[in-house]
Amino acid sequence: MLSVDEVLERILAQFEPLPPQTIPVDLALRRVLAKPITAPLDLPPFSNSSVDGFAVRSADVSTASPEHPVELPVVADIPAGVSPHMPLPANCAARIMTGAPLPENADAVVPVEHTDLSFQSAASQPPTTVRVLIPVRPGENVRPAGQDLAKGQPVFASGHRLRPQDLGLLAALGISEIEVHDQPRIALFSSGDELLPPSSPLTPGKIYDSNRLMLRALIDQAGGKALDLGIVPDALDAIRTALDTAVEGRADLILSSGGVSVGTYDHVRGLMEQEGIVHLWRVNVRPGKPLLFGKYHGVPVLGLPGNPVSAFVGFLVFIRPAIYRLAGLPSSPTPTVKAILEHAVESDGRESYLRAIVRHETGKRLVRLAGHQGSGNLYGLVQANALLIVPAGVKSLAKGSEVDIWPLENFSE
Amino acid sequence: MLSVDEVLERILAQFEPLPPQTIPVDLALRRVLAKPITAPLDLPPFSNSSVDGFAVRSADVSTASPEHPVELPVVADIPAGVSPHMPLPANCAARIMTGAPLPENADAVVPVEHTDLSFQSAASQPPTTVRVLIPVRPGENVRPAGQDLAKGQPVFASGHRLRPQDLGLLAALGISEIEVHDQPRIALFSSGDELLPPSSPLTPGKIYDSNRLMLRALIDQAGGKALDLGIVPDALDAIRTALDTAVEGRADLILSSGGVSVGTYDHVRGLMEQEGIVHLWRVNVRPGKPLLFGKYHGVPVLGLPGNPVSAFVGFLVFIRPAIYRLAGLPSSPTPTVKAILEHAVESDGRESYLRAIVRHETGKRLVRLAGHQGSGNLYGLVQANALLIVPAGVKSLAKGSEVDIWPLENFSE
Repeated sequence: MLSVDEVLERILAQFEPLPPQTIPVDLALRRVLAKPITAPLDLPPFSNSSVDGFAVRSADVSTASPEHPVELPVVADIPAGVSPHMPLPANCAARIMTGAPLPENADAVVPVEHTDLSFQSAASQPPTTVRVLIPVRPGENVRPAGQDLAKGQPVFASGHRLRPQDLGLLAALGISEIEVHDQPRIALFSSGDELLPPSSPLTPGKIYDSNRLMLRALIDQAGGKALDLGIVPDALDAIRTALDTAVEGRADLILSSGGVSVGTYDHVRGLMEQEGIVHLWRVNVRPGKPLLFGKYHGVPVLGLPGNPVSAFVGFLVFIRPAIYRLAGLPSSPTPTVKAILEHAVESDGRESYLRAIVRHETGKRLVRLAGHQGSGNLYGLVQANALLIVPAGVKSLAKGSEVDIWPLENFSE
Repeated sequence: MLSVDEVLERILAQFEPLPPQTIPVDLALRRVLAKPITAPLDLPPFSNSSVDGFAVRSADVSTASPEHPVELPVVADIPAGVSPHMPLPANCAARIMTGAPLPENADAVVPVEHTDLSFQSAASQPPTTVRVLIPVRPGENVRPAGQDLAKGQPVFASGHRLRPQDLGLLAALGISEIEVHDQPRIALFSSGDELLPPSSPLTPGKIYDSNRLMLRALIDQAGGKALDLGIVPDALDAIRTALDTAVEGRADLILSSGGVSVGTYDHVRGLMEQEGIVHLWRVNVRPGKPLLFGKYHGVPVLGLPGNPVSAFVGFLVFIRPAIYRLAGLPSSPTPTVKAILEHAVESDGRESYLRAIVRHETGKRLVRLAGHQGSGNLYGLVQANALLIVPAGVKSLAKGSEVDIWPLENFSE
């Protein structure tokens, strides 16, 4: 009997981050950087105005007041997007719009509200003179070049998974292509003579294949690319064909979700034994069954149980970390969240992942078990919004104790 | 000055859930059900064995013990996926595999470990007799039909967004097509003569357009479909063409991310005034600028500020709820998470969404502000992993106080 950690360690030892590929930043959401990024330019790229107003030399308006305004000729007009064509002469002003570059020799911007003029549209003719009513300090209303980020500064470490705001920053830096780790390709098939696709009529003794659709979606959510090989009957040739297709499809991992019959495992084991590597690990986990691990033509094969809840938990515990490793994410345990147990829970000493319902009340996160925990009971899983983790060796948890959970609502709501 | 809630209410009043469309379950991850689902069949569909063993009438083996085993003839063999072709006669056993249907008149299954036989592969010849060493109770090791879910039972409410496990359950129920709300189509463009796409060389006075890529990814994450109209110059004709393209593309919402110049707003406002609906709402929110709302040929138009951080926050506060409404999700405030403030925070009385860094220490979630909060500082946003929400009217928050945050790490890690 192996612990979850021992099995996970053995699995992860079989995988390493996939090689880098160059892709457009447009397609990089959720991809993982294969190289660190440093800023190729300053942000902002040039000193610019943070308001609509008049660029000045601050010393020229130091005496300004509503009673004694300083009147300056307006010698230039700088809308956003243009480059000032001359330095600002002494005792002069340039009309400037938010985001427009500060002219040379100007060191501050007087907001239009601090002048005798009213709101100025960029499309309007600039005035010939402006009266400044309130002085400005050097640097006031100016965003200096490099204020947010200086050229050469490190921005992202490799192994970083890109979020919307990260794509925005890459774009702001003028980076249109990046090197990311190749996306993990996960071949999967369901095996079992009892399985039917959901579109066929149900015949006696058969059940619908639920795992393949669920695992495909889980692979997608984890950042992998699913290569769906369908339902494979419990026959040596059919299984060999599926494995060969996965290898030809350059799968990085082959995932089978076992039929309930042991025949399939016999076949899969047989095929892999020819290559010399096959293990059937008995893992101290609930829900769970023996986990098949092997290699077929050098490609790791992992066999999950056929029971949908066992397959779901097995995926989160063992397969997702392997996909993350392939994708180039740093290895770290799946983060847990703390919650207060609403009732006592008995366990059998195995590391257990129990379907649970979390709710918030008076600022506390409370958790209780959801429905019956049979490993075939997918409806119980659907009603749950968390998995309650009972550590190995623990036989009971008291009401009110603090426990670890994995939330199951993965959307960014 | 309007409150965030007032503005959100006005925006949401413009949207209703999109009409239903029928799609294959294979493509339904993250889509929102437009109709409730009830179970079209029992789960499991038939009573079946939860172990590998021998189906019996429990009364026949009630006296079994290791010293006095009950010997029964094995009259049938039921692997998974077949239908038993006859009822079980009295004082007989049928070899049965996990998941295989219980024969008529059998009421329990003796696990193979409780017999004189060892592990049986489904491919092997069944034995002619079996000796039962331990009795079984009626119903033992049997999963009755409908145990998990009975035919006709409600499974999902309409408005439910589908997760991997939900797709698994739909498949298990033999449902291959479902009615979901149409996916919201969000047209977007960036406006401003100063904007360049990240692939062009940077020229004086210009900056790279960061918002479009960021907003596209945010739309995608929220479950919408982005219709990218590119960078649109500050010119009436160009803006009209963009708006027309959005309308032709059947956009449900047109999102502009304002250039820094006011010229664009003038144009957009002018175009919408011809239709009679345009508002420039001053919202009591930080970071933020006036929020443009209007309609163009009946399609709602929302104009976000050009500053990337304002655009990001504006999207989460005002646009994402509108996309959720269109997608058919129930309206509910974006859930917040509680955290303990690591230092005092001053505010100006506006509802503020400040870039923050959350960390966990000794079971507590601690939050502090991240870098400088300038609304152009996208790097500060990238360094953050949460937004700290300071409610309207609050001018200071003490160190150690409990505050609301929005986590920004949206991946299912």
